[in-house]
Parts: sequence; structure tokens; C-alpha cells
Amino acid sequence: MVMPLALLEKSLDKKVSLLLKDGRVLEGKLTGYDEFMNMVIDDTVESFQEGEGRRLGVVVLRGNNVVSISIV
Amino acid sequence: MVMPLALLEKSLDKKVSLLLKDGRVLEGKLTGYDEFMNMVIDDTVESFQEGEGRRLGVVVLRGNNVVSISIV
Amino acid sequence: MVMPLALLEKSLDKKVSLLLKDGRVLEGKLTGYDEFMNMVIDDTVESFQEGEGRRLGVVVLRGNNVVSISIV
Amino acid sequence: MVMPLALLEKSLDKKVSLLLKDGRVLEGKLTGYDEFMNMVIDDTVESFQEGEGRRLGVVVLRGNNVVSISIV
Amino acid sequence: MVMPLALLEKSLDKKVSLLLKDGRVLEGKLTGYDEFMNMVIDDTVESFQEGEGRRLGVVVLRGNNVVSISIV
Amino acid sequence: MVMPLALLEKSLDKKVSLLLKDGRVLEGKLTGYDEFMNMVIDDTVESFQEGEGRRLGVVVLRGNNVVSISIV
Amino acid sequence: MVMPLALLEKSLDKKVSLLLKDGRVLEGKLTGYDEFMNMVIDDTVESFQEGEGRRLGVVVLRGNNVVSISIV
Repeated sequence: MVMPLALLEKSLDKKVSLLLKDGRVLEGKLTGYDEFMNMVIDDTVESFQEGEGRRLGVVVLRGNNVVSISIV
Repeated sequence: MVMPLALLEKSLDKKVSLLLKDGRVLEGKLTGYDEFMNMVIDDTVESFQEGEGRRLGVVVLRGNNVVSISIV
Repeated sequence: MVMPLALLEKSLDKKVSLLLKDGRVLEGKLTGYDEFMNMVIDDTVESFQEGEGRRLGVVVLRGNNVVSISIV
Repeated sequence: MVMPLALLEKSLDKKVSLLLKDGRVLEGKLTGYDEFMNMVIDDTVESFQEGEGRRLGVVVLRGNNVVSISIV
Repeated sequence: MVMPLALLEKSLDKKVSLLLKDGRVLEGKLTGYDEFMNMVIDDTVESFQEGEGRRLGVVVLRGNNVVSISIV
Repeated sequence: MVMPLALLEKSLDKKVSLLLKDGRVLEGKLTGYDEFMNMVIDDTVESFQEGEGRRLGVVVLRGNNVVSISIV
Repeated sequence: MVMPLALLEKSLDKKVSLLLKDGRVLEGKLTGYDEFMNMVIDDTVESFQEGEGRRLGVVVLRGNNVVSISIV
């Protein structure tokens, strides 16, 4: 059994891919999170589906906009 | 009487099919969950309805995006 | 006076019809629930309105996607 | 001053008309409620606006889908 | 400084106009409320924008569907 | 550091412009608020974007419909 | 590990770019926040995607409308 937040803990400083409710995908390095699944992502690149990425740098993401987090 | 979270407990390491609010279906092995029905899914394959699957690997899923979980 | 959760208790192992927020209807045997109206449904058949049913087997349903539960 | 839940208490076993968020209207006899305004309705008839009613029998209704309750 | 609930208290038995999230407007006499801004409205008339009113009588309104309350 | 509610406190009896989730803009004098950012607005004028204003007088506004509050 | 609110603390008096749920982008100086990620932004400029900015001055922003905060 792996608790969801424990998996985030193990994924710190690793690359993750986040699917947001509005269909956007953010990729970057997970450098922090809290119990609401708010997250801090470094070197964030944003894309809609498979399109060209836009660089966003350091991003704080509100957990209630996140659908899923893939460890990549 | 089977409490919903007790059924998740019994489904650990089994294959599940998740219907999300945005219509996507995720299939994979349930390896973790918490009391908010956040879940950890291994070997996740994503599909819209009956289409070709996209492999997502290990995924943390926020419970409030989940409509239903089928034990398959 | 019948409290809503007391009616669910009385409906255990009976057939129920659930209307979800996205318009889908699930029918099956109610085998569990919790205080958030998360439910466990056995022998679940899914339909959009009056269409052909798709068999889903055992389903855990998140309460916040449920509009109404009819005892059938 | 009439507290909203006190009016529901006084409306027990009376006919009510419920407007849901998705535009449906349910009419029936209010036989129960809880502090979240989840309700139990007997002899429920469903209609979209002024159309033909569909009989639903006993219904448990989740309060967060209810817009308003008219005492009829 | 006028706390929002204190203004509702002062508006008891006065006529109010309520804008709901779905665009409907309800007018009537405010006869009750609670801390969630659930309200009891007497002699309620419903209209979409400026159209003809439909009489609804006594209505219990769930606060989370209310956008704004005008004291008229 | 200015806490958001402290800025509301400082803006009492000043003119504010509120953007609501449905795109409407309300302007008026802020005369009250609570910890949920429910607000009381006096001499409220409503507009959609830059259109003609409709006078609403004293309005109680539910905080969860507010996107942003500009001090004008 | 950088907690999301700790990153906001470090970003005080720095320029941030906020993506809101309705697609609008706000840029300005972060001068305050609270535990709900409500924020105070100074010298706010609003734009839809890459369009011309509209100056909004000091803005209080409700956290539940924020998707992400980029430190720029």
C-alpha cells in the first residue's frame, strides 16, 4: 500500500507530468507539496495536449485544479 | 454491508477501471488510496471511451475528479 | 421522519437506480454506503437515459457525483 | 424568523416541489431531511419544466443538487 | 461596518431580490435565513431577467446557489 | 505583507469594483465583509463588462461568487 | 522541499503571474496572501492570453479562482 501523499514525497526532485482540469499539461520537477496537493514545480513547461511548450519557470499550483500526477 | 473504503482496501493490487469527471477512463492496478479517495494507480492506461490507450505509468489521482471505480 | 441515510440503510441489498450529475443512470444492488453517500453497487448496469446497458460489475461511487437515488 | 431547516420540519409529510441544478423539477411528499438538506421524497414525479412526469417512487436526494424547495 | 448576516437580520420581513447562479431572479419577503445563507422567502415570484413572473409561494433556498441579495 | 482581509478592512467605505464568476462587474461602496469574503456593497451599480449600469442599491454578495476585488 | 505557501512567502514584493480559472492572466506585485491562497496584488495588469493589458491597480484575489502562480 502506497499512500498518495507518500508517493509525492518519493517523487520530490523528480520530473512529473500534471494534468489540469482545463486540459493543460504541466511538466517539471516537483520540489514541494502540501496536504491539499498544492504543489511547487520547477522548470515548468506548459502544453495543451501535444503542442509546443511554453516555459513558466517556478510555479505554485493549487491542488484543486489537478486531475492527475504522472511520475515520468 | 461493505463500506466504500473497505472495498478499495480489498481491491489493492487488483486491476480497476476509473471513470473521471471529464469522461476519461483510466485502467491500472490500484496500489494505494486515502480517505479522500485520492488513489495511486500503477501501469495506468488512459482512454477516452473505447479509443486507443495512452500509457501513463504510475499516477496519483485526486479523488474529487473520480466519478466511479469499477473492480475489473 | 426518515433520515436520508436511514433510508439507504433500509435499502441495503435492494436494487437502486442512481442518477449521476453527468446524466448517466446506474442500476444495481446497493451493498454499502458511508456518511458522504459514497456507495458500493453490485451487478451495476450503466445507461444513458433509456439506452442499452453496459455491465460494470462492482462499482464504488463517489457521493458528490450522485444527484438522486431511487429505490426500485 | 423561520430558520430554513425549521420550515422543512414543518413541511414533513407535505407536498413539495424541488428545483434541481440541472433544471429538473421533482414533486412529491417530503418524508425526511438532514442538516445538509439531503431529503427523502415519497411518490416522486420528475419533470423537465412543464413536460410529462416520470414516476420515481421513493427518492433520496443529495442536498447539494437542490436549488430551491417550494412548499406546494 | 455592517456584517453581511447582520444586514440579512435587518432585512427580515422586507422585500428582497435574489440573483441565483443559473440567472433566475427571485423576489419575495425574507422570513428566515441561517449561517450558510440558506433563506426562507415568502410570496416568491420567479423571473428570468425581466420576463413574466411565476408565483412560487414559500420557498427554501440553498445558500450556495445565491449570487447576490438586493434589499429592495 | 498585507493580509487579504486586512486590505478589505482598510477599504471599508471606499469604492470597490468586484468581478463575479459569471462575468458581471459590480461597483459600489464596501460597507461590510466577513471571513468568507461575503460582502455588503452600498450604491451598487451592475454592468456586464463596459455596458450601461443597472442600479441595485444595497447588495449582500456571497464570497464564493467573487473572483477579484479592485480598490478603485 | 519547498512548501507551496513558503514559496509565496519568499515571493512577497516580487512580480508574479497568475492564471485564473476563467483563462484571464493577472500580473503584478504580490504584497500579501493567506492560507487559502487569497492574495493581494499591487499594480495589477489583466490580460486574456497575450492581449493588451487593462490596469486594475490593487486587487484582492480569491484563492479558489487561481489555477497557478508563476514567479516571474
